[in-house]
Amino acid sequence: MTAGSDSPAVRIDRYVGQYAERAKGMVASEIRALFAVAARPEIVSLAGGTPYVAALPLDAVGSMVGELVAGQGTQALQYCTAQGDAGLRERICEVMSLEGVQDHPDDVVVTVGSQQALDLLARIFVDPGDVVLAEAPSYVGALGAFSAYQADVVHVPMDDEGLIPEALEQAIAAVAASGRRAKFLYTVPNFHNPAGVTLALSRRHRILDICQRAELLVVEDNPYGLLGFDGDPMRALRADDPEGVVYLGTFSKTFAAGVRVGWAVAPPAIRDKLILAAESAVLCHSSFAQLTVREYLSTQPWREQIKDFRELYRARRDATLDALARLMPPGCGWTEPAGGFYVWLRLPDGVDAKAMLPRAISARVAYVPGTGFYADGSGGQFARLCYAFPDPERIREGIRRLAAVVEGEIELRHDFASGVPSV
Amino acid sequence: MTAGSDSPAVRIDRYVGQYAERAKGMVASEIRALFAVAARPEIVSLAGGTPYVAALPLDAVGSMVGELVAGQGTQALQYCTAQGDAGLRERICEVMSLEGVQDHPDDVVVTVGSQQALDLLARIFVDPGDVVLAEAPSYVGALGAFSAYQADVVHVPMDDEGLIPEALEQAIAAVAASGRRAKFLYTVPNFHNPAGVTLALSRRHRILDICQRAELLVVEDNPYGLLGFDGDPMRALRADDPEGVVYLGTFSKTFAAGVRVGWAVAPPAIRDKLILAAESAVLCHSSFAQLTVREYLSTQPWREQIKDFRELYRARRDATLDALARLMPPGCGWTEPAGGFYVWLRLPDGVDAKAMLPRAISARVAYVPGTGFYADGSGGQFARLCYAFPDPERIREGIRRLAAVVEGEIELRHDFASGVPSV
Repeated sequence: MTAGSDSPAVRIDRYVGQYAERAKGMVASEIRALFAVAARPEIVSLAGGTPYVAALPLDAVGSMVGELVAGQGTQALQYCTAQGDAGLRERICEVMSLEGVQDHPDDVVVTVGSQQALDLLARIFVDPGDVVLAEAPSYVGALGAFSAYQADVVHVPMDDEGLIPEALEQAIAAVAASGRRAKFLYTVPNFHNPAGVTLALSRRHRILDICQRAELLVVEDNPYGLLGFDGDPMRALRADDPEGVVYLGTFSKTFAAGVRVGWAVAPPAIRDKLILAAESAVLCHSSFAQLTVREYLSTQPWREQIKDFRELYRARRDATLDALARLMPPGCGWTEPAGGFYVWLRLPDGVDAKAMLPRAISARVAYVPGTGFYADGSGGQFARLCYAFPDPERIREGIRRLAAVVEGEIELRHDFASGVPSV
Repeated sequence: MTAGSDSPAVRIDRYVGQYAERAKGMVASEIRALFAVAARPEIVSLAGGTPYVAALPLDAVGSMVGELVAGQGTQALQYCTAQGDAGLRERICEVMSLEGVQDHPDDVVVTVGSQQALDLLARIFVDPGDVVLAEAPSYVGALGAFSAYQADVVHVPMDDEGLIPEALEQAIAAVAASGRRAKFLYTVPNFHNPAGVTLALSRRHRILDICQRAELLVVEDNPYGLLGFDGDPMRALRADDPEGVVYLGTFSKTFAAGVRVGWAVAPPAIRDKLILAAESAVLCHSSFAQLTVREYLSTQPWREQIKDFRELYRARRDATLDALARLMPPGCGWTEPAGGFYVWLRLPDGVDAKAMLPRAISARVAYVPGTGFYADGSGGQFARLCYAFPDPERIREGIRRLAAVVEGEIELRHDFASGVPSV
């Protein structure tokens, strides 16, 4: 301690011995500071998974919301039940029917985004040290929620067709061999975050069979399912096994992230526990946000809006893949997403995405290093690129900058390897 | 198991062996079913702590919200940081300055109502079996949040002047004698829920001194502080000990419960952990809800609206106390709140509020039995009456009905005691 104790910047945490065991793992990500920088306008951010909400008809949504408050304000501004507004839950069932899910509104629990559903599932299932199976890589927010309850995440490999059934079988067997049993399998079957791949139709029944045999609950997280660029939405896993699958949905990408309205559909016993856990966590979700979504789905052309989003994101995906193919140096590889927001970029051998990030930000481009998507901190050779927010021209410029940074890394490595100092 | 296994109503929970230890205590309250009945219009509900949001200028708020979405929709409908909107946090500091709290917006974390703040505090402080001190009785939602993390709640007695300093000292000593140390003291100093009492000014420094000496963090939950019926708001505990007190506030009672916007102000180390815990729990709160509150505080006469709420609730408090004095049978007692929503009713010896509730609902009046406000299930002689929602005439009718039910209970007890069967 060198600074004077009267300096307001120096504060000793007098509660340091008082925190719960689970709080000890709560430390700010080392790349968090860089992200604050990445928000500057001169930087092309391919980092955050930010939807392009400017594509919404803001005047129409504004009028709709104004009428909602003026006409139904005593409901919209009041508490509601922990399960969520019944009318919204009906609309949610309509939305899910596009993916073959046939559930009753009673089976739906409205959550504060899908993130809260992940938190509540971990809360009701995970004791410290319990195993959760998750794809490798896996959504950083899910890993955060599971680790908050001290889960032991075991990753299961994917390939271009998504989760590999044989690898899942092996992982289940390995967990069993260690005398344990996983609490659930966490999977993002469609347009995976961060991997950009989709679970092949031919694998879906196989995965469900494996889980049924192992009595392994499946948590199907599906934020991007309606944002596919080719053909109709894929059939949800839950459509074929409602007793074995908890389905998580959200309006963050198909309407507005800022309403924080997501949902879980679960077998009745799990649903009941989710409702009780939600009540303990937040009492109830915002009626105001819920009724806004309910009105949006009841009065606005939401199916057409999703089509518009699809076309918008398809053009950005195309710009991304085109620029990657034209600009990235040899030794890189990437996935080709058929929907959603993300490309998963593999850097040349020996190039570390986390070490490279400060240089990328100096070159005015940002991404998320792969390490955040692995519970064990591996994935350093990978980067997640999100193409949802910048327009195609900015995407091309961003990837041009990124390619130059990667080339610099390769050169640097080459110089090191050949013993010639870089001057 | 007598029903056929093909009955859809009979479902066996195949996950029953899989839940986390903490989930075993998650069971629906036995009075929950009664509350569904209590929502019927023919019943005068003195049960839920429901604010009277119909007193808001709904047209003006509707216009404001419509303009917000049309003009600032790209922010209002987008993700924000886990700490919450910076502009809203500035307004929150203005609101708290009415109670002498002088904090910087950086010290504020926006939460999904105060309930989320309670959940996050328990999450970062409470390991299973850890002691939390709380008033007797204490807010049911706080007890629920603490028990979700398997806290051992130790109650500290109150009287008409709030928490009793000597009792707090004794409780701290008793906990220490058992070889433990409480993680924090949870207190509702103003217009207590459910007790309706307020911590006397003369006791506030004493309570802070005791906690400082014991190095005991104070969690000051203050939903009703601006809804006092006499004079200026009381000075917050945090105003006199910012390093020792976490302050929780909410707009649920001063603006709208349906936006679910609350906040915590905490010493920096705790604030940082709250932000990380919030991110893990919900990623971020709704921008839409937050910016709605920010705009409300920036453009609408919110101070005048609070005055209107105060007058409205004062009239309802008066109706409640007047009716209780005129109608309740001998043997009852009640607190006389100087603000807020609640009267704490003591029933005659031997009358049990929980056992009486079904009969009260048959008589078309509802309340909350006292047992929910004690971690140990005591408090059966008490009932919480909330006067915030029904108008004075309904309140009088409700208390008339309640008085008749209590009289019936007394008569029944008397008949039992004298051995004369009630015919």
